[in-house]
Amino acid sequence: MTERTVPFVTAGRRKWWGWGVEGAGPSPEQARAIAQTVAGRFGVAVEPRPPPRLEELALRAPRIRPPAALAAIVSDEPEARAGHHYGKSYRDVVRAFRRELPSPPDQVAFPSSEAEVAAVLDWCDGAGITVVPYGGGSSVVGGVETAIPGASKVLSLDLGRLDRVLELDRTSRAARIQAGVLGPALEDQLRPHGLTLRHFPQSFEFSSLGGWIATRSGGHYATLYTHIDDFVESLRVLTPAGVVATRRLPASGAGPAPDRLFIGSEGILGVITEAWMRLQDRPRFRAGASVRFDGPEGFLRGAEAVRRLSQSGLFPSNCRLLDPQEAATSGAGDGSHAVLVLGFESADHALDAWLARALELCRDAGGKVPQSAGRAERSAGSDDGPAGAWRRAFLQAPYVRDVLVACSVIAETFETAVSWDRFPEFHRYVMAATRDAVKRVCGSGTVACRFTHVYPDGAAPYYSVLAPARPGSELEQWAEIKAAASEALLAGGGTITHHHAVGRDHRPGYDRERPDAFAEALRAAKRALDPRGILNPGVLIDPAA
Amino acid sequence: MTERTVPFVTAGRRKWWGWGVEGAGPSPEQARAIAQTVAGRFGVAVEPRPPPRLEELALRAPRIRPPAALAAIVSDEPEARAGHHYGKSYRDVVRAFRRELPSPPDQVAFPSSEAEVAAVLDWCDGAGITVVPYGGGSSVVGGVETAIPGASKVLSLDLGRLDRVLELDRTSRAARIQAGVLGPALEDQLRPHGLTLRHFPQSFEFSSLGGWIATRSGGHYATLYTHIDDFVESLRVLTPAGVVATRRLPASGAGPAPDRLFIGSEGILGVITEAWMRLQDRPRFRAGASVRFDGPEGFLRGAEAVRRLSQSGLFPSNCRLLDPQEAATSGAGDGSHAVLVLGFESADHALDAWLARALELCRDAGGKVPQSAGRAERSAGSDDGPAGAWRRAFLQAPYVRDVLVACSVIAETFETAVSWDRFPEFHRYVMAATRDAVKRVCGSGTVACRFTHVYPDGAAPYYSVLAPARPGSELEQWAEIKAAASEALLAGGGTITHHHAVGRDHRPGYDRERPDAFAEALRAAKRALDPRGILNPGVLIDPAA
Repeated sequence: MTERTVPFVTAGRRKWWGWGVEGAGPSPEQARAIAQTVAGRFGVAVEPRPPPRLEELALRAPRIRPPAALAAIVSDEPEARAGHHYGKSYRDVVRAFRRELPSPPDQVAFPSSEAEVAAVLDWCDGAGITVVPYGGGSSVVGGVETAIPGASKVLSLDLGRLDRVLELDRTSRAARIQAGVLGPALEDQLRPHGLTLRHFPQSFEFSSLGGWIATRSGGHYATLYTHIDDFVESLRVLTPAGVVATRRLPASGAGPAPDRLFIGSEGILGVITEAWMRLQDRPRFRAGASVRFDGPEGFLRGAEAVRRLSQSGLFPSNCRLLDPQEAATSGAGDGSHAVLVLGFESADHALDAWLARALELCRDAGGKVPQSAGRAERSAGSDDGPAGAWRRAFLQAPYVRDVLVACSVIAETFETAVSWDRFPEFHRYVMAATRDAVKRVCGSGTVACRFTHVYPDGAAPYYSVLAPARPGSELEQWAEIKAAASEALLAGGGTITHHHAVGRDHRPGYDRERPDAFAEALRAAKRALDPRGILNPGVLIDPAA
Repeated sequence: MTERTVPFVTAGRRKWWGWGVEGAGPSPEQARAIAQTVAGRFGVAVEPRPPPRLEELALRAPRIRPPAALAAIVSDEPEARAGHHYGKSYRDVVRAFRRELPSPPDQVAFPSSEAEVAAVLDWCDGAGITVVPYGGGSSVVGGVETAIPGASKVLSLDLGRLDRVLELDRTSRAARIQAGVLGPALEDQLRPHGLTLRHFPQSFEFSSLGGWIATRSGGHYATLYTHIDDFVESLRVLTPAGVVATRRLPASGAGPAPDRLFIGSEGILGVITEAWMRLQDRPRFRAGASVRFDGPEGFLRGAEAVRRLSQSGLFPSNCRLLDPQEAATSGAGDGSHAVLVLGFESADHALDAWLARALELCRDAGGKVPQSAGRAERSAGSDDGPAGAWRRAFLQAPYVRDVLVACSVIAETFETAVSWDRFPEFHRYVMAATRDAVKRVCGSGTVACRFTHVYPDGAAPYYSVLAPARPGSELEQWAEIKAAASEALLAGGGTITHHHAVGRDHRPGYDRERPDAFAEALRAAKRALDPRGILNPGVLIDPAA
């Protein structure tokens, strides 16, 4: 982490229309270089247009005013309202870049205590104000969007000031943490204790603990601790019907797990204010290697190696299989072969036996293991080495995406999970459907795939689309590609999302995937906890049955 | 498994009042020996009384008759009704032994297909008949009991004929399995494929897959896969409002996990009819050792070793810490020291590095590792060796308990989970409270403790009580001990149950432990799925708010 987080409201430096903080990301020269590279790849003219300026906006006047008691923590400044209109999907950034902000929140609240969150909720519940909980604002599925059909008054509830580690239990390796803390500030507070949450989604710099929990965020462990879910020891959730405080326990068998109703609830049942989280000792031992899988079926043979690894009980922390396109983009290959980036880490023991057996499995599956493989590698957490380079590129990607938006280039991803028996056919089908759509809609473009997380019974493939769009038609073009991809995911037996959540954008897919009777149960639970339906309506379920 | 399961209804051989099948368990001579041993230990006269016979019962006449279409799969034979009145807690067996069966189910249904389950549910929903789903009948918390206040017609729904593996996916290591299958029959069907669910609760022989899922059963993995929860890939659940069929996926981030609402729902939301379950390859490599912890604080020093192990990332499959009393009872020690039984297993790789590091951790924590430790041991799954002996004793225990019931000796257990920071004080407090209660109520008796499952952030201690009761007063005496123990668990920060579920018996503790607003949400979900409230009322929540 070279860039430190700057809270939006205190410093006003978060970029309201795109990723991260003003001034970070590619320089103007770098942006031009990126544009030229893309132009060269697709053989089209690409010219970055100037980004929007706050002065260009004419936001609708706020339709509500806070009561005097809340005036100090509620803002209707244009920068706050514009910055809380959307999340950070490609669609969101394009709309903001186009100065299309028709439905900003009327007010943005910045509580700095649970009591203030409760006071804001009370006000909104009494006054019929729709509340959109907002953590780091990095949703890529319309989960924090304030354009809500039927909502006449909307408040965005920014939890960013709830940013402290409140209590730390070194013995059990757990901490009680406020939900609004962003990734870097959280790690800064844990580091002096030799601990880490070790949850590194791509949005790490600008996403919050509460957001991770509410959206079942995927971190950077490739196996075992893939989603945030298993790190949650207990929760505090404010609902209009009262506080839900679950008991801090390593495990329990007492009824359906209460935490699991709120993990993934995407702000529709309550506002997560704090959580006891399970932590890790900071790793001291690392071992890793890159394995090549050649040939036209290299990616599928790599997938077979990963299947065996995922069922071996070795639990690599990193098991990132890149297809040739993805390997080329990230500099891990030349585009002729698939690459498996394999890593083990531990705070307790050397990992020679683990890596040796893993490489044996890879060789048996036809992988090419380099001579030097098996030596300890300075890896994740360090800023050096190939893993450090990957990590920087990984965290820079959203900044680069802002440049591509300026160039009318579609840069978006989708991800899923599917069982191993279905994977080969599923993957061919999804790739073909998406490539066909890209070609039909954009004329040219690339679709790449990597595995982000793997399981004994399946994999989570992650697809990246890059394609030149017609300026002004980006959203329609992307919508057509996304629809084709989503149809392929669901028809092939996958999930509409492995770790990007549902929000509003994934509703059509989610509505097909989840059982209707479960939606009825969820709607009933929502009515019990949020009787007036003020919380994030339209996310996950429709307000009325 | 030497004894094969005999389905209750087809062979009629399940012991209606106690554990297992007629004729299994201790012989009359062995029973007398057990009685003498207990008599000697407590210095009291102990004399087994004769068990109840079916002919001695005068069951209430059935209050309902099935429609003609269901007559073939619904029974009101006395043996079926008596056998489905209770589960298998100490309290249950005592009541059955006393011939106290005032509220047997009016009918017992034995569907052998999902369509038949649906037909039974339809009948009951239309006729206002309370339905108690029944898997293997091994509940120890009143979860399958048919004495339900306010219920005028009760049917026990025995899923035992849904006992087949329907589909097997070797590639993903998963199978679609009917929910009524008991442990041995399930393993018999998986074994030819080299696979195992490897879920071995103590009730293994007479508990079902659906029961395990509905109660969040704890298996025999000490780490990682402790509860059945993580083995569930997808579920089919029949509810009065329709079928809930979740998508088969290795993982998803699409909203709150639907499966998690039904895992632990204890029959109040629907009837689980089948599940895709994640399986394991049958282990080929094993390594294990026993480690001694001497001195008056040996158990607590052993706990510290286990804490370090649980945080090491080594993931032992067996990590059973026995206090001196527990070690003596199971033959693993002489009562002077605590014993840690440590085991690793794998289908993929030799485990020398794993065991070596684990033993190093134990030595560092003051454990005495025998010279021979570290050699591969024929262990769980084999019938030989100390682990095999433990396993036989473990599975025999419920049979022995029937003998103790006949002798008016209280033999019951309770279990919990608590974070590591609290554990030492918690354990002293629970032991003191329980021992005080045993002494006060019974004059003498023992309380022993072992760890069944451990986590990076805490342990699941399991307490066993053995005490001589006054004939005729066993239930009141146990209730007083149980109340003292439960109070200590909850006041100390534990859970009312780690893997025995809530049922009706744990309601007072559960009602304190779970957040009220979560109970409201659960009640609302139940109203949506079971509008007339026919399913297992009183379990987990009260029917009315």
